[in-house]
Amino acid sequence: MIIVMKQDSKREDAEKVANRVAEMGLKPHLIFGEERNVIAVVGDDRRKDRVAFESCEGVDQVMPILAEYKIASRETKPEPTIVQALDLKIGGGHLGIIAGPCSVESEEQIMECARAVKRTGAKGLRGGAFKPRTSPYSFQGMKEEGLKLLAAARDETGLAVVTEVMTPHHVDLVASYADVLQIGARNMQNYQLLEAVGECDKPVLLKRGASATMDEFLLAAEYILDQGNQQVALCERGIRTFESHTRFTLPLASVTYLQSKTHLPVVIDPSHGTGHAYLVPPMCSAAVAIKADGLIIEIHPDPANAMSDGAQSLTPDVFEETMKDCRKIADAVGLKM
Amino acid sequence: MIIVMKQDSKREDAEKVANRVAEMGLKPHLIFGEERNVIAVVGDDRRKDRVAFESCEGVDQVMPILAEYKIASRETKPEPTIVQALDLKIGGGHLGIIAGPCSVESEEQIMECARAVKRTGAKGLRGGAFKPRTSPYSFQGMKEEGLKLLAAARDETGLAVVTEVMTPHHVDLVASYADVLQIGARNMQNYQLLEAVGECDKPVLLKRGASATMDEFLLAAEYILDQGNQQVALCERGIRTFESHTRFTLPLASVTYLQSKTHLPVVIDPSHGTGHAYLVPPMCSAAVAIKADGLIIEIHPDPANAMSDGAQSLTPDVFEETMKDCRKIADAVGLKM
Amino acid sequence: MIIVMKQDSKREDAEKVANRVAEMGLKPHLIFGEERNVIAVVGDDRRKDRVAFESCEGVDQVMPILAEYKIASRETKPEPTIVQALDLKIGGGHLGIIAGPCSVESEEQIMECARAVKRTGAKGLRGGAFKPRTSPYSFQGMKEEGLKLLAAARDETGLAVVTEVMTPHHVDLVASYADVLQIGARNMQNYQLLEAVGECDKPVLLKRGASATMDEFLLAAEYILDQGNQQVALCERGIRTFESHTRFTLPLASVTYLQSKTHLPVVIDPSHGTGHAYLVPPMCSAAVAIKADGLIIEIHPDPANAMSDGAQSLTPDVFEETMKDCRKIADAVGLKM
Amino acid sequence: MIIVMKQDSKREDAEKVANRVAEMGLKPHLIFGEERNVIAVVGDDRRKDRVAFESCEGVDQVMPILAEYKIASRETKPEPTIVQALDLKIGGGHLGIIAGPCSVESEEQIMECARAVKRTGAKGLRGGAFKPRTSPYSFQGMKEEGLKLLAAARDETGLAVVTEVMTPHHVDLVASYADVLQIGARNMQNYQLLEAVGECDKPVLLKRGASATMDEFLLAAEYILDQGNQQVALCERGIRTFESHTRFTLPLASVTYLQSKTHLPVVIDPSHGTGHAYLVPPMCSAAVAIKADGLIIEIHPDPANAMSDGAQSLTPDVFEETMKDCRKIADAVGLKM
Repeated sequence: MIIVMKQDSKREDAEKVANRVAEMGLKPHLIFGEERNVIAVVGDDRRKDRVAFESCEGVDQVMPILAEYKIASRETKPEPTIVQALDLKIGGGHLGIIAGPCSVESEEQIMECARAVKRTGAKGLRGGAFKPRTSPYSFQGMKEEGLKLLAAARDETGLAVVTEVMTPHHVDLVASYADVLQIGARNMQNYQLLEAVGECDKPVLLKRGASATMDEFLLAAEYILDQGNQQVALCERGIRTFESHTRFTLPLASVTYLQSKTHLPVVIDPSHGTGHAYLVPPMCSAAVAIKADGLIIEIHPDPANAMSDGAQSLTPDVFEETMKDCRKIADAVGLKM
Repeated sequence: MIIVMKQDSKREDAEKVANRVAEMGLKPHLIFGEERNVIAVVGDDRRKDRVAFESCEGVDQVMPILAEYKIASRETKPEPTIVQALDLKIGGGHLGIIAGPCSVESEEQIMECARAVKRTGAKGLRGGAFKPRTSPYSFQGMKEEGLKLLAAARDETGLAVVTEVMTPHHVDLVASYADVLQIGARNMQNYQLLEAVGECDKPVLLKRGASATMDEFLLAAEYILDQGNQQVALCERGIRTFESHTRFTLPLASVTYLQSKTHLPVVIDPSHGTGHAYLVPPMCSAAVAIKADGLIIEIHPDPANAMSDGAQSLTPDVFEETMKDCRKIADAVGLKM
Repeated sequence: MIIVMKQDSKREDAEKVANRVAEMGLKPHLIFGEERNVIAVVGDDRRKDRVAFESCEGVDQVMPILAEYKIASRETKPEPTIVQALDLKIGGGHLGIIAGPCSVESEEQIMECARAVKRTGAKGLRGGAFKPRTSPYSFQGMKEEGLKLLAAARDETGLAVVTEVMTPHHVDLVASYADVLQIGARNMQNYQLLEAVGECDKPVLLKRGASATMDEFLLAAEYILDQGNQQVALCERGIRTFESHTRFTLPLASVTYLQSKTHLPVVIDPSHGTGHAYLVPPMCSAAVAIKADGLIIEIHPDPANAMSDGAQSLTPDVFEETMKDCRKIADAVGLKM
Repeated sequence: MIIVMKQDSKREDAEKVANRVAEMGLKPHLIFGEERNVIAVVGDDRRKDRVAFESCEGVDQVMPILAEYKIASRETKPEPTIVQALDLKIGGGHLGIIAGPCSVESEEQIMECARAVKRTGAKGLRGGAFKPRTSPYSFQGMKEEGLKLLAAARDETGLAVVTEVMTPHHVDLVASYADVLQIGARNMQNYQLLEAVGECDKPVLLKRGASATMDEFLLAAEYILDQGNQQVALCERGIRTFESHTRFTLPLASVTYLQSKTHLPVVIDPSHGTGHAYLVPPMCSAAVAIKADGLIIEIHPDPANAMSDGAQSLTPDVFEETMKDCRKIADAVGLKM
C-alpha cells in the first residue's frame, strides 16, 4: 500500500504513520518528496484495514497495491480451472453452453426446452425453481416441484442442471437435485450463502452483482474458494449504468480482464446482459469471439407467454441458429464447443 | 401500461395484442396513430408480467404506468408512518438520530460510544455485531457477543439499539437483543431475509442497494410490509456511480422523491454515502435541511484504530459539534430533534 | 406522447391538458382508468416541448413515444448508408479499418504507422493534429504541421486520412487536408461544430459522448444530416460507468441497437473503449463478430514513448496479428474486410 | 507517481523503468517488495505523460499522486476566490443567488422574471440567448436579440446578467452584453472555448460536464485560469447515473470536496440537477446548509408554456418562498445572502 501525506503535513506526521506501519509487522519506506511525503509499505497487508490510515494526522489518501483476493488469483494458480458437471465443461479452451427457460413452469415446458438444448449439442440446462423477483407479487417459481422436473429432464437428456439457490438453508435441498448451483447477481454479496455453497461439493456459477467492481466480484469468489470448493465459474451478466436501451450494460472486456487476473472460467449471460431477445444472438457471437469460457442463454417455447423474462428469451429455433453461428466463430478462434 | 407497436407492424398485430390484454382481464384501448399504433391498458396490471408483451409480433416497447408497489405507496396511506423504538422516533416531523461505531469491538468501545451518543440527546445506537465484509479476510464482527454488549449499552443509556441481521436464520437471535433490525445495502434484494424480518415484530431499517432504482427499493420494502410488519424506515446510503472521490454518491433528492411516493420515513447515512469523515458533518446539515426523517452516523473513539470504516468515522467530539449544527438547521426547517 | 395524470387529479385537469394538446395541432385521446387518467397524443410531436406538460395542473409524468431524430432513422431510410473516402468503405457489409497513432508526432512516426497500416490491407489512417487534452499542460498536437504530414502519408500510401476537428473555424483548414473529419467524444454536443461539418462535403466520424444516451447520439448525428451532409459514421468508444479497470466501458450491444434504429454505419473504437493495449485485440474480434461496420485502432511504433495514449496503443506487429484474427472472424460472419 | 511492477516481472525491468524516470529529470525510488516491486517517483511529473509507463516491459499499473491542476489548487492559493459582477458576490462567505428563465423568450417574460428576482434580493439574472439543445428541431434561443433584452433588464434592475456562450467566435459578442459568461455542461471540455473566455475580462461560470470527474472539472477551470482570467466560479449541476427519477443525480458532497481542493467558489444548480420543479426548493435548502457559494435557479412566469425546461422552472411565487427558506438556513450556517 502507498500512503500519501497532505502537502501541509509535517515530517513527524509521516514518521508516526511509518511507526504504525512497522507495529503492524509491515515494512515502511519513507520518501520525502518536493510536494508530498509518501510512505510505501512492503509486505502482505491483505488482512489489515488499510483505509483506516486515512484517519491518521496528516494523511491525504491511501492507495492499495495488492489485490485482496489470493486463492482466486492467477498468481497463485497460473493454469486455468475447468469447471465440470456431467458432460458440461467450462474453461481451459472448452466453451460450455447452458440454455433453458428463466423459470421452470411445467413438465411440458421444461422437457421441450431440454430437448431443444440437447439437439444443438449444448451440455447444460438452466431453469429457475426458486426465483428472486423484484416484486413480491410476481411468480416466485415452482420451488421443489421445479427441481424435480429439472432432475427428470436431466435423466432423459443427460444435460447438467444449473439452477439458483437463494438462501443458505436451501443449499442441501437444491444440491440434491442440481449439478451446478447458481448464485444470482442480487446475492453476490450474501456471504452466508457464499459460505454455504463453499462447503458443498457441487460446482458453483457465481453471477456478478449489477454494481460490483471486479475486486468485489473476485472477493465473493474467494469466500467460496476459502471454504474449500474450488469449482467456481464466474458469470458476467451486465452492470447498471445510465443506459436504458438495454436492461443492463454488458462489458465483454470483463472476459479478458478476468482471464488475466484469475484462473477461474468466465461465462457470459447475454440474456440478462441485454434484456432483449434480438440482441442475444449477436452478443453470443461477440462473447465467443472474445473467448468467453461459457454462455448461459434463456430460451422459451413461447416467449410471449413466459411467466418471467419473456422479452429476453429466444425461441428454440432462433437458439439453434445462434448455436450454428457460434460454432463458426468458435472454430475461427480455436475454442472447443 | 402502454404498449407501443413498431412502425412497420400491421393493424392485426395491434388487434392481437389488444385481445391478449382483454384475456388477462384488463381493458385495452387501441389508438391508431400517424406513425405508431398504441394500446393503452386500463386496469391493475401490477401482478402481470407486463414486459412479456415485448415478445408479441409487432410490439416495439412496453411502458408501465402504475408502480408495482402498493402497500408502500402514499396513495394507499397518505399520512406519514412514524417508526418508533424506545425513545427513537423517525418520521412525521421527528428527526431520529442514530449513531455509533461501524463494528462493536469491545465493551469499553461500545460504552464510550453509547455515552457520547446519549450526551448529544440522540436516541439510537448503531453498532455491527454480524458484519458483511467484502473480503473473507476482514474482521467479521463479534457476533452474539457483540449483541450482548449492545444490549448492555441500551440497559445503561436507554438508547434504542439498531444492528444488522444478515441471514434469515439469525433473525430471531438478533431480534432478541436489538430494537431495530437493519437490512444492509448488499441484502436489499435478499428476499428470504426481507420476508423473515417482515414476520418479526421489530422495526426495520432497510438500506438502499448501491445500484437499486427507487422502484426496486420500494418493492423491497413492499416484501416486508406484505408480511405484516408496517414499521419500516428506508435508508438512502448512496449509489454507485463513476465518481471516485467519494465512496458512493449520495443523492439527497431521494428524500423528497421518496417522501412524495411513500409514507415510510427516509433516513440518510452520510458515513457510507461519502466514505470520508470530513464530508460527514456538512452532509448531515444538508440532510436535515432537506427534511430527512433521520440520520445514521458512524462514530469511533479512535478512528485510526477502528477495525472497520475508520476513514469515515467521526470522533465523539466532532459528532457533538455536528449535532449542534444540525439542531440549528432543524429549528430553521421545523423538525423535532 | 403519453401524458399520465396524478391519482388525485381531477377529471377537469385531464380535460384541460387534452385541450392544450389539441391547440398544438395534435390529437388527444382521453382514457379514464381505474387508478389513473391518461392522455395519449396522436401526431408528430417531435418539434414540441413535450416535457413542459409536466408543469400543468395534475400531470404526473410525460412519456415520449416517437424518437426525436428523423433523418437518421431507419424508418426514414431503410437501406444502410455506406460512408466512403478513397478506398475506405464503412457500412453495408463493408468492415472499414482505420488505424494510426493517437497524435502525429513526426514525419518518421506517421510514415512508419502508415506503412504498417497499409501492409495489413486496412484503408484508413488515423492521427491527431489538433488534440483535445484534459490538461492544458499536455501536448496539444502539431496542428497544421501535423495535417501536412498526414496528407503526405496519404499521398504515399493511398490511405484515407481521418483526423479530428475541434472548433468550427478550423473546419475548412482540416477539410483541406483530411478525407474524413472526426468529431471527438467531448464535442459530440458542440452544436456549432456539428453544423459546420454538416455544411462540409467531407464524410464525418462522430464519436459518442462518454455519457450520451443513444437518442442524444442520434440527435447529434441529426444536426449534421440536417445541414445536408449525409456521410456520417457513428463511433461507439465507450461510456463512463463505475468500472475502473478499463478507461471506459465499451458496450458492444450498441452496434446491434444502432443498426436497428438508424441506417448510419457504426464503428467501434476499442482503444479508447478499454484504455489498455492487451484488451484491444480481443475487443476487435468481438466487434467484428457482432458485425460492426468499422474499427478505429491506435497504434504506435514505440508506445512507451508515445506523446499521448501510449498505454492503449498497439505496436505494428501486434496490430498485424490482430488484423489476421479479425479477418478469420469477418469471414465467419460474412463481412467484407 | 507510483509505478507498480507485475509480480512475474524481473528486477531489470524495474531498473529500466527507474532509468527512464531519471532521464525525464525526476527522481526514482526503487522498492523491492515481497510480492511486487514498486518505483516511487519524486518531483513534479504534471507535464509528463505518466500513463505511457504502462507500455514499458513488466509494468502493471501507474498511479498518479499529484493532481494535474496547479493554479486552481488551494495549495497554490489558500484564501478563497470571490467572483464578483456588479452586486453579485460568489464565494468567501457570500452566497450568490442567480435566477431567471432557461431561455429569454420575450421582453415581457424577461422583465417579469428580472423584477421577481430583484424583489427577493437576489443579485444575478440568468437567461439563455444562445441555447444548446439536444435536438436540432428545438427552439435555439433568440440569439443577439435575447442578449439585448437581458442588457435592458440589467439596466432597469441592476442585476448582473449571466448567460451562456457556446462557441469561441461568439465570446466578444456575448461579453459585450453579459456580466458573467456561462460555459455549459456540454462544453466543459471545449478547449478552444475555455481558452477564449480565459482571455476575456468577464467572470466565468463553468458548469461540470455530466460525466466529468473532479480532476477533469478542475483541469477545465485550469484552462481558463492559465489564460489569465482568475474570476472563475465552478457550477455543480448533476451527473449522469443510472437513476431515472431525476434528470441528473446532484451530489452535494461536491461542494465540500471542491472547497477543500480549490479556492474557486462552488455554485449549485438544483434545476438541472433534479429536472423537476418540486425538487428544486428542498435542494436549495440543502445546498445552502452545506455552504455552497451560490445557487443558480430556473424560474418562469408560466412554466407550462415555457419554450424550454418548463418542467424544472419555479414560478416567481414559489421562488420567493424558496428564498425565504434559504435565508433562514443561511443565517443558521453563517452565510451572507
